[in-house]
Amino acid sequence: MVLLRAAGGREYFASAGGEKLHTDLGIVDLKKLEGMAWGSTIESHLGKPFMALKPRAPDFFKHMRRTGAPMMPKDIGAIIAYTGICPSDTVLDAGTGSGVLAVYLGTIAKKVVTYESNEQFANNAKKNVELAGLGNVEVRHGDILEEIGRLEGPFDAVTLDLQDAARAAAGAYRVLLPGGFLATYSPFFEQAAETRKAIEEAGFSEVNTIIVGEQELEVGRRGTRPSTRVGHTGFITIARK
Amino acid sequence: MVLLRAAGGREYFASAGGEKLHTDLGIVDLKKLEGMAWGSTIESHLGKPFMALKPRAPDFFKHMRRTGAPMMPKDIGAIIAYTGICPSDTVLDAGTGSGVLAVYLGTIAKKVVTYESNEQFANNAKKNVELAGLGNVEVRHGDILEEIGRLEGPFDAVTLDLQDAARAAAGAYRVLLPGGFLATYSPFFEQAAETRKAIEEAGFSEVNTIIVGEQELEVGRRGTRPSTRVGHTGFITIARK
Amino acid sequence: MVLLRAAGGREYFASAGGEKLHTDLGIVDLKKLEGMAWGSTIESHLGKPFMALKPRAPDFFKHMRRTGAPMMPKDIGAIIAYTGICPSDTVLDAGTGSGVLAVYLGTIAKKVVTYESNEQFANNAKKNVELAGLGNVEVRHGDILEEIGRLEGPFDAVTLDLQDAARAAAGAYRVLLPGGFLATYSPFFEQAAETRKAIEEAGFSEVNTIIVGEQELEVGRRGTRPSTRVGHTGFITIARK
Amino acid sequence: MVLLRAAGGREYFASAGGEKLHTDLGIVDLKKLEGMAWGSTIESHLGKPFMALKPRAPDFFKHMRRTGAPMMPKDIGAIIAYTGICPSDTVLDAGTGSGVLAVYLGTIAKKVVTYESNEQFANNAKKNVELAGLGNVEVRHGDILEEIGRLEGPFDAVTLDLQDAARAAAGAYRVLLPGGFLATYSPFFEQAAETRKAIEEAGFSEVNTIIVGEQELEVGRRGTRPSTRVGHTGFITIARK
Repeated sequence: MVLLRAAGGREYFASAGGEKLHTDLGIVDLKKLEGMAWGSTIESHLGKPFMALKPRAPDFFKHMRRTGAPMMPKDIGAIIAYTGICPSDTVLDAGTGSGVLAVYLGTIAKKVVTYESNEQFANNAKKNVELAGLGNVEVRHGDILEEIGRLEGPFDAVTLDLQDAARAAAGAYRVLLPGGFLATYSPFFEQAAETRKAIEEAGFSEVNTIIVGEQELEVGRRGTRPSTRVGHTGFITIARK
Repeated sequence: MVLLRAAGGREYFASAGGEKLHTDLGIVDLKKLEGMAWGSTIESHLGKPFMALKPRAPDFFKHMRRTGAPMMPKDIGAIIAYTGICPSDTVLDAGTGSGVLAVYLGTIAKKVVTYESNEQFANNAKKNVELAGLGNVEVRHGDILEEIGRLEGPFDAVTLDLQDAARAAAGAYRVLLPGGFLATYSPFFEQAAETRKAIEEAGFSEVNTIIVGEQELEVGRRGTRPSTRVGHTGFITIARK
Repeated sequence: MVLLRAAGGREYFASAGGEKLHTDLGIVDLKKLEGMAWGSTIESHLGKPFMALKPRAPDFFKHMRRTGAPMMPKDIGAIIAYTGICPSDTVLDAGTGSGVLAVYLGTIAKKVVTYESNEQFANNAKKNVELAGLGNVEVRHGDILEEIGRLEGPFDAVTLDLQDAARAAAGAYRVLLPGGFLATYSPFFEQAAETRKAIEEAGFSEVNTIIVGEQELEVGRRGTRPSTRVGHTGFITIARK
Repeated sequence: MVLLRAAGGREYFASAGGEKLHTDLGIVDLKKLEGMAWGSTIESHLGKPFMALKPRAPDFFKHMRRTGAPMMPKDIGAIIAYTGICPSDTVLDAGTGSGVLAVYLGTIAKKVVTYESNEQFANNAKKNVELAGLGNVEVRHGDILEEIGRLEGPFDAVTLDLQDAARAAAGAYRVLLPGGFLATYSPFFEQAAETRKAIEEAGFSEVNTIIVGEQELEVGRRGTRPSTRVGHTGFITIARK
């Protein structure tokens, strides 16, 4: 996959070696991209330049089709940092939603298996994974609460963005490698408290629940100040087997 | 490297295949660890069990020797998520400090080169990198402001935790791959504003400065409430070439 | 002044003993309100009931005509609490803006003198003060930076919501009673730092700059969570003579 | 009451017209203070100067003897601003605790009646009220949950800092003047949610629950930054009859 950046910052995702990409700035012959170095420029049939960039996780986040409020980068980042996701990891994720977290994890980990019980969401997530060109992210349509008992594992990390995360805590403990981390995301307080309780009862240690806030700095002619908006936020619980 | 977890949660870092590890719970023969599966248990000469765990980034964060206030996981996570650090990346980092960010990046990226002008800090960071067993993190004792002009790059990302980050902005732009990200961390407001201005003047786009907050949820018998402490915080500026 | 509350929560400000109030729910004879107890009900000529309530500061805040972003109750409350505004106080205020802070202070203090250099804003603020029925709040059209040198005082408190608050710091010190408080409000960081420096140089003690945040709790069917919006915010500096 | 400020910022509370005050800086004859203007200076028998200041609410906050974690000025200020406490108000308060909120309200309102079920706390609060010289604040040792049914009212505002605030909601509604405000303070989330539900069921309108944060700006030689500490915080629910 390649990110084509035209003048004015307009961006297109495309598959190098694919067919033709039709844009407002003319047709780009994607076959020509094969073998080009990142940062090279290619022209459309109208002579308009497109720079070929290596797509990165924030591009996937921006261009993925969303079926609900996605987990935000600040929360994804906290999950990555507190669980220590790395390239040798096999990660179990549920519920996929648009696949934002699964894709992010997939850009780092060896393998991500993600469960989504809503078929429409699962299909959309599969397309998002394709868009990101990630062959190591497997979206499965199914209910993690039923499936987790049959999974063999072991997984290095389990990430849950589920209303019923509490009911998956014991299963998550079972499939985790000793020393592996569980991360749950709960938009609501009641759910966070219930999930946390289940996590503690499942035998996890080092249980910690955090709220990650992010405030943008507004820089204007009159001066600088913190923004009055904060992103969509949830309670993240991190725990270790 | 292996993390040995004894009863009561006590933890030790050790090198599998190394010599003997002397602990309060007896001597552990590290040679026996070779070839053992993660999660296996080994006994000290006193018969005390130690579980052999795969060490993860949060372990390095906890066990590294610090020469100053380290960047916190919430900020490290935001930098990883907003720059999209991934296993094919080559990253330029400065100033190293204790090496916390460099080590975290090293657990994900292909290669991290990090500059520290203080020799004592650089030596400590080298030990921390060794502790983490990361052969892909190269700590260089030197001044990034002088060196960045000579570096060839290209780098997929540049991360700067420097008082003088503003003076490194143009150099960072030059060594970055098109589409690559710069992330700077500034503890003070004045420094953040100055750095941001230099970043904008250096030609970067998508410049965004954020403050990432983290509040722990205190769970007690009487109820649940947000903690009254927030972690050490700085201004993170993310920008793209 | 009386607050008339009709069915469905609709509210009207009126002057007890005044003429007739025309509403969608009929005409109310305000003369009948004279001598009635708070909480009594009066009917319009269409037989619709209106409850006569004692208006309170939040009503003034809600019903005042605004000429710009007003200071928010959370910030007004912090200023009141940290300066200890009380009924024996004479307060100097500038710039008035819509008069939100002056009116709030006027509901508590003996006397408030407030300066606004923009004539249109001053006239609007005068109307807002009238609406609140506060005879003890005097809106003066004029430049506090010129006037503060001629004011005799002493004032128990001085409150400044001015871009040039730094230039009024020395004058504020002079007109304050020993033990009296200064409170400044600066929307921008640069302005807050400059103002604070001037306040320290003017001889004030116990100087403290704070940011007051407010997060609403969203209570819904699915659960409870902190809102993703925070109110308009500034830097408040409190100092004592 | 008078606040005597000696060199170096040392402060003493005393009663003007009282007996002698013994200090490290000599004995001050309090009789001499009678009739002196605020800001006058009086000398101890050792010739050390003391400036006689009018005490203000923040002085009471600082000098009151605490029997637990007190409500903080940021929260007190928000309660004052959102309920519009003013000099014609009669306020019902419970539980008193150290009396911090009752004293603050007493510096503004006509009358404050406050209930504390713990006798030791009630006695300490009475002393704090005396220290503040507030004849209009009446501390009653008793259980508000039992007493509120017998109270006649009406009150302009009711403020509750009680674990069982939910059980006092209906009573608070009954004793409030129409248009009057209830403010509750709950340190814990569960308690806040329960209290809020009871408030809505009691017939209140305009119910709003907020968390008020306060971050100090640290100003140092190296620059300016938000503090890493935030004050003790609770959930404030404001509602109107």
